[in-house]
Amino acid sequence: APAVKKKAAQSSRSWIVVDPSGQGTVLDADKYAIMRRVQIHARDLRILDPLLSYPSTILGRERAIVLNLEHIKAIITSEEVLLRDPLDENVIPVVEELQRRLPPVNAVCQCQGDGKEYQGGQNDVEVGDEDESPFEFRALEVALEAICSFLAARTTELETAAYPALDELTSKISSRNLDRVRKLKSAMTRLNARVQKVRDELEQLLDDDDDMADLYLSRKLAGASSPVSGSGAANLFLASPTVGSKISRASRASLATVRGDENDVEELEMLLEAYFMQIDGTLNKLTTLREYIDDTEDYINIQLDNHRNQLIQLELFLSSGTVSLSIYSLVGAIFGMNIPYTWNDNHEYMFKWVVIIAGLVSALLFVMIMSYARHKGLVGS
Amino acid sequence: APAVKKKAAQSSRSWIVVDPSGQGTVLDADKYAIMRRVQIHARDLRILDPLLSYPSTILGRERAIVLNLEHIKAIITSEEVLLRDPLDENVIPVVEELQRRLPPVNAVCQCQGDGKEYQGGQNDVEVGDEDESPFEFRALEVALEAICSFLAARTTELETAAYPALDELTSKISSRNLDRVRKLKSAMTRLNARVQKVRDELEQLLDDDDDMADLYLSRKLAGASSPVSGSGAANLFLASPTVGSKISRASRASLATVRGDENDVEELEMLLEAYFMQIDGTLNKLTTLREYIDDTEDYINIQLDNHRNQLIQLELFLSSGTVSLSIYSLVGAIFGMNIPYTWNDNHEYMFKWVVIIAGLVSALLFVMIMSYARHKGLVGS
Amino acid sequence: APAVKKKAAQSSRSWIVVDPSGQGTVLDADKYAIMRRVQIHARDLRILDPLLSYPSTILGRERAIVLNLEHIKAIITSEEVLLRDPLDENVIPVVEELQRRLPPVNAVCQCQGDGKEYQGGQNDVEVGDEDESPFEFRALEVALEAICSFLAARTTELETAAYPALDELTSKISSRNLDRVRKLKSAMTRLNARVQKVRDELEQLLDDDDDMADLYLSRKLAGASSPVSGSGAANLFLASPTVGSKISRASRASLATVRGDENDVEELEMLLEAYFMQIDGTLNKLTTLREYIDDTEDYINIQLDNHRNQLIQLELFLSSGTVSLSIYSLVGAIFGMNIPYTWNDNHEYMFKWVVIIAGLVSALLFVMIMSYARHKGLVGS
Amino acid sequence: APAVKKKAAQSSRSWIVVDPSGQGTVLDADKYAIMRRVQIHARDLRILDPLLSYPSTILGRERAIVLNLEHIKAIITSEEVLLRDPLDENVIPVVEELQRRLPPVNAVCQCQGDGKEYQGGQNDVEVGDEDESPFEFRALEVALEAICSFLAARTTELETAAYPALDELTSKISSRNLDRVRKLKSAMTRLNARVQKVRDELEQLLDDDDDMADLYLSRKLAGASSPVSGSGAANLFLASPTVGSKISRASRASLATVRGDENDVEELEMLLEAYFMQIDGTLNKLTTLREYIDDTEDYINIQLDNHRNQLIQLELFLSSGTVSLSIYSLVGAIFGMNIPYTWNDNHEYMFKWVVIIAGLVSALLFVMIMSYARHKGLVGS
Amino acid sequence: APAVKKKAAQSSRSWIVVDPSGQGTVLDADKYAIMRRVQIHARDLRILDPLLSYPSTILGRERAIVLNLEHIKAIITSEEVLLRDPLDENVIPVVEELQRRLPPVNAVCQCQGDGKEYQGGQNDVEVGDEDESPFEFRALEVALEAICSFLAARTTELETAAYPALDELTSKISSRNLDRVRKLKSAMTRLNARVQKVRDELEQLLDDDDDMADLYLSRKLAGASSPVSGSGAANLFLASPTVGSKISRASRASLATVRGDENDVEELEMLLEAYFMQIDGTLNKLTTLREYIDDTEDYINIQLDNHRNQLIQLELFLSSGTVSLSIYSLVGAIFGMNIPYTWNDNHEYMFKWVVIIAGLVSALLFVMIMSYARHKGLVGS
Repeated sequence: APAVKKKAAQSSRSWIVVDPSGQGTVLDADKYAIMRRVQIHARDLRILDPLLSYPSTILGRERAIVLNLEHIKAIITSEEVLLRDPLDENVIPVVEELQRRLPPVNAVCQCQGDGKEYQGGQNDVEVGDEDESPFEFRALEVALEAICSFLAARTTELETAAYPALDELTSKISSRNLDRVRKLKSAMTRLNARVQKVRDELEQLLDDDDDMADLYLSRKLAGASSPVSGSGAANLFLASPTVGSKISRASRASLATVRGDENDVEELEMLLEAYFMQIDGTLNKLTTLREYIDDTEDYINIQLDNHRNQLIQLELFLSSGTVSLSIYSLVGAIFGMNIPYTWNDNHEYMFKWVVIIAGLVSALLFVMIMSYARHKGLVGS
Repeated sequence: APAVKKKAAQSSRSWIVVDPSGQGTVLDADKYAIMRRVQIHARDLRILDPLLSYPSTILGRERAIVLNLEHIKAIITSEEVLLRDPLDENVIPVVEELQRRLPPVNAVCQCQGDGKEYQGGQNDVEVGDEDESPFEFRALEVALEAICSFLAARTTELETAAYPALDELTSKISSRNLDRVRKLKSAMTRLNARVQKVRDELEQLLDDDDDMADLYLSRKLAGASSPVSGSGAANLFLASPTVGSKISRASRASLATVRGDENDVEELEMLLEAYFMQIDGTLNKLTTLREYIDDTEDYINIQLDNHRNQLIQLELFLSSGTVSLSIYSLVGAIFGMNIPYTWNDNHEYMFKWVVIIAGLVSALLFVMIMSYARHKGLVGS
Repeated sequence: APAVKKKAAQSSRSWIVVDPSGQGTVLDADKYAIMRRVQIHARDLRILDPLLSYPSTILGRERAIVLNLEHIKAIITSEEVLLRDPLDENVIPVVEELQRRLPPVNAVCQCQGDGKEYQGGQNDVEVGDEDESPFEFRALEVALEAICSFLAARTTELETAAYPALDELTSKISSRNLDRVRKLKSAMTRLNARVQKVRDELEQLLDDDDDMADLYLSRKLAGASSPVSGSGAANLFLASPTVGSKISRASRASLATVRGDENDVEELEMLLEAYFMQIDGTLNKLTTLREYIDDTEDYINIQLDNHRNQLIQLELFLSSGTVSLSIYSLVGAIFGMNIPYTWNDNHEYMFKWVVIIAGLVSALLFVMIMSYARHKGLVGS
Repeated sequence: APAVKKKAAQSSRSWIVVDPSGQGTVLDADKYAIMRRVQIHARDLRILDPLLSYPSTILGRERAIVLNLEHIKAIITSEEVLLRDPLDENVIPVVEELQRRLPPVNAVCQCQGDGKEYQGGQNDVEVGDEDESPFEFRALEVALEAICSFLAARTTELETAAYPALDELTSKISSRNLDRVRKLKSAMTRLNARVQKVRDELEQLLDDDDDMADLYLSRKLAGASSPVSGSGAANLFLASPTVGSKISRASRASLATVRGDENDVEELEMLLEAYFMQIDGTLNKLTTLREYIDDTEDYINIQLDNHRNQLIQLELFLSSGTVSLSIYSLVGAIFGMNIPYTWNDNHEYMFKWVVIIAGLVSALLFVMIMSYARHKGLVGS
Repeated sequence: APAVKKKAAQSSRSWIVVDPSGQGTVLDADKYAIMRRVQIHARDLRILDPLLSYPSTILGRERAIVLNLEHIKAIITSEEVLLRDPLDENVIPVVEELQRRLPPVNAVCQCQGDGKEYQGGQNDVEVGDEDESPFEFRALEVALEAICSFLAARTTELETAAYPALDELTSKISSRNLDRVRKLKSAMTRLNARVQKVRDELEQLLDDDDDMADLYLSRKLAGASSPVSGSGAANLFLASPTVGSKISRASRASLATVRGDENDVEELEMLLEAYFMQIDGTLNKLTTLREYIDDTEDYINIQLDNHRNQLIQLELFLSSGTVSLSIYSLVGAIFGMNIPYTWNDNHEYMFKWVVIIAGLVSALLFVMIMSYARHKGLVGS
């Protein structure tokens, strides 16, 4: 374990920092420098460690959002984005997208402070696609879009491979096809778990207003620097302006919403909802695929069982033939014995009768066995 | 992906707009025009994109309800309904129903503003079927009714096909029947997922008063235009009149209901409840069908296994016969050898004894094998 | 669909009205008359339509409780009970029970208004079985008792049929027994769904105080007619006296209980709890039955597999015998050829040796095969 | 049904009453007497009816706790415990334990009223095992301990029987072993349902503070007799001191805790938690056992399948031998025909060649079949 | 049971106490001494009894945290840690780690009281790994880290053993491999239950702010000793300063957070979240492994079935051969009979024809059977 930790410490140095202007600079700092820079705890940084397999997570901390979404391991503050392993082939497009989308559209109107929320709300509707969301949300959206598209692409790949393989297996059950489907199923199970994890994380965020409020880094920063301007009466009940941000995870009551303009999470909710739906659609596809695989397996099992019964029916037919022929042969064997018998001579008509009668007995036996089986429903019409 | 997006942009132009008088006009606008018209975000418009497979959704936005229910992809504002792909054969009846039902019954009493809610409440009870609900709810009801009937019809079709197919499979297990049931099961799984999705969306809405309140577009519009007339004391605690509409998804507390006359969702709740029950009944039918299929599969499996055992029992019987006859034949073969033996002559009574004794031994062997099998419970009484 | 609706409209006329004095009068009204009489919406009336298969429901409306519990389709107001299809053989006992139990015990003390709740509370404990609950609860209890007993009786019938059938199947697996168990399992699945539905509806009611408060029709009526007499201070925070009744489904906060004497649902909760437990017990029985069936199926599967293996073991034994005998026969066949060979003459001791040696070889082969199989664990002691 | 009820009424007379001094007196009262004595409703008394199979329940009523835990059917008031069927062999130890533990340790300090809670709290920590909890909790603890130990003992018995049976089944699959495991599995399923029921009831109680508060009978009694001494300001918002006890099941808000010293349920929570954990541990054991059984069944299924394949492989080997020998025999049969052929004479070297060549052909055929099967992977190395 | 309890009492004496300076002293006290020392109830101490199999638990008591995490059975107070069975080989590293990490980094700044929280908060970010959390959290973290690492190590061990075993089983199904996989699956199920238990306990804690607040032992102690200094207005609504700590388990409302600086659980939440994620990752691995095993079993089942069908197909081929050869042999047997027939003489060309025709008939029969089977799809191409 100590060896592993040292290795992690070494590899943890490869970061890229993207600032609001879209400029990316490679950062070569140890973990303590990172922790000081973004003011997160060592425990939170460990979540991003590529050597430890933490599940997908979106964590709101005092001054940073810690993102661990598959290969996208990032720390988002209100002023910059730190992205891990920027040279990973899956991460490169994320970096590019970040550099393209992070710079604000009309760089003039970067109004922070009290008036921001109202303006943001009005713009949101009119400007449409080119949203003026805070910096941290633009970065978060890039990450979510990247991971959702990535998982959707993996799902589509899997579907493209799985459906033909299943149909092929249905038409021909061979070890090779079985093994292929098994590998695909295994891959699907793993992909399903990853998609589920991201979806659950989004759902959990959406279910908890306070967790969402924790992600409004710019607002929290603005709120902390500017003195509160609430009315005295309200303060009578809500001791301090920072109460809202301290309300914990499970708290579902609405007191937080009393100071609505500070803790309104509508904007983030709409953003997360859109990606939640996309990932939910992906999960639906995987679920459908899983059920198709399960149905196919059930079908194959019944098919195999039915096939076997038909094989055994044919064998039964052959066994009946064998027994009937054995009876006939037996007669031949009996009369083929070299033991002399009295009525041997002058019975030259005998041969004919023996052959005919033995043949009839044998045929009768065969017909009887078959009739019995058919009567019992063992061999079908 | 960019190619797909371009295609989506092109095909996104086919909309029909139905206004409160029931008049429908085809709209040939690009997505930015739509977004500006109904004031929704690009993300929300994307949900209606027929090329992206988003799951069923009912979203309340500031001034519009975004509906994505299978083929019914619509945006409902307080003044008009935008319906996508109006030429789709499944959508045409929806358009017709909208045009028939959207115009108010007694067009005189379209009273908006402060007095509306109370009047609406009183009318609701007395007028019965010809409800005076706000425009957006009349449109929503048409869409819900259409989708519920559509899914119920699909379910009935499936039931009509599945039950006979299953009974046929039970009476005769053939590859053709197996394949038919497999296709039906696969269709059922997919239909089940779609019905479940609509049901879950309705349930989620019903569970959250604030989401429902978000759908009261007319009221929100009326509330925004008219100044609040709450008593001062109440305002002491509820900072602004728009607080209620900003309370987010997960907030379940009842503070919102303090200003009950503004956020009362009784009417919508009753509307949604009715369609929730209908879709729940549909889901119940599908669940019953699924369980019938599963039970039938279990039965077929046991049936096949049992059939096989009976086949093998018969084969065992034949094998016993073969062995017994082999013993007999063996005697024949031995005495048929052309090797001369001493006691060959003057033993003409021999033949009779050899035949009789060998026959008895053979029969005894057969009886012994059968008794053993019966004793062990291998072949049944 | 329109044809079906017309038919429903016709058949919807058969109602019986039972008033507080226990008198039942057949009502021949169309649906609009019903809707006007009990002041419910057309949507709610549709739930009671016997042609549409709505799941079990208990709905509290402004002035009525809409009950759809299997065959018991009723509307309960604070003054009368409307029961659908009173001539259905399952409904007749419900009508009789209603007529017996609806009249109050001591008809004098039918005190409505402010003082009612307290008195009701005190009586409740002392009077015991002859409860003085409001009219709507007495009617509701009759309906719940009827449906719970009905489902319990169905469950007992099923149990009586299923357990012996399963034990018979265990001792003898035949197509007839299999088919019987399959039909019982199918019946059980359907009954289970119905019981579950009623249980879920009761659970959902019990989980939500506001839904329960909605069922206090008499209280709501009394509350609406008498002016509120709350203290001014309380009104400072709770804008109107009717707030409580408007708090919606999902609202779980306790503000409603602040005006406890108005919204106290203790009495109804105890009533529902008792029937919830009864139906829960019924569901438990069905679950136990289901698990018994599943366990039996697993057992039968393993049993059949094991049986088959034993059959094949016996067959293997016979096959070994066949091969051994074939070797012996072969020797006979070889020496039986009519090809002359040199050492034919003067070897009269040959016969003996050929017979003995071939027999030994054959027996040895048989023993070797059996030993191999036993060594490999294929045929076991 | 009426006959059953009468019977229940008769058998309901056998009760034992244990008072705080530990004295037990048999009570021979009809159900109305019981209902009047403990002030519960007939519905609640029915839960304890041994003829009706109600699931496990712990209900808090105004002045009594109604307990239905398997064979322990009791009503606990703040002054006495009524226990049903005291002569049942499972109930006798409970009665004895009640008589031993109910009398308070230091009988002097039975201080009720205002000061009680604080003192109880202090004692709780110092006195350790000999707790000074209110009478109803001492009785409740005895009942919970009895039922938990009872179920744990049943579980241990089952485990003791099941594990060896499963291992025996694994080593030898016989009908007898199969039947034994099936009976054990069935017993386990039933025991599991019972343990689950008790656990769920405890969990539900622990999840709801108000339900727990309902069980503080002594406190409620004390609260009802002494006038409330809250500050006037608090009363402004909380209309009456009894509000707390009226807050219903689903209400999860914390208003009740405002008057914390009255509704603090810490003591009961700790008591229930301990038994919840014990029963949870029991459930864990059963779950582990269930999974062990399921795994064993899967293993047996694969084992049986594999065994069968090996049997069939051996049979295939024998069949190949039979076919090869048949070929050889055929040659013998051909040359054994009594039809004269031309090259019969002077070919005395023939015999040797026919025997050798036929033998080689036969052996070759056998080797070919085996090679083919091995090549196809049908018989393994 | 009494014997067991005595034994438990004896073995309960082996404790080690680690104080804040890191010094560990073995404690030889009976359970009453322990209970008095840490002020917990006998019920809570029983949870740590190694003879009773309680599930994993983290309980917050008035002045102690009771930890039962697999082999780590500890009681943490604000001043010392009591660890059970310190000589257990799994516990020794925990003791060492405790002794290493418990002493504060800069022992000077152990400031308790009012100012503590703010300072702690600031340090938390800056100091990074060497956190200045309260004593009880440092101890808790050591225990959590130990148990998480322990379970992760067990999981890795299992994975290392399971994956090769499964792949080996796939390539060769033998009883030995089957048994090995079964044992691994059984081990996995047990490990899964243990990991799940720890994860659930952490999740439950994280879901409930009040349970987390209960673990702030130092704060509670500080709060109890210093008088409350809240503003009068707040007290109007919140009767006493200790209300917060008395809010029970299920209470989810946010009133507690009004006095945020006292009940803020951010620090503990972050600590628990980190270990929750680690254990969740471990659980994910186990789930993946379980699904891999299940998929492999499904694959093996289909594989075995398919194998069997192929074996039976080959047998069918052989049976067909046997029947065909039997026909041929039969002809030989017929003509081998020693019954004289008329056309025996002067038909020396006969032999040739009999041999050829019989051979053709036999071959034709074989081809016909094979064609029929192929036509029916019984034997594949």
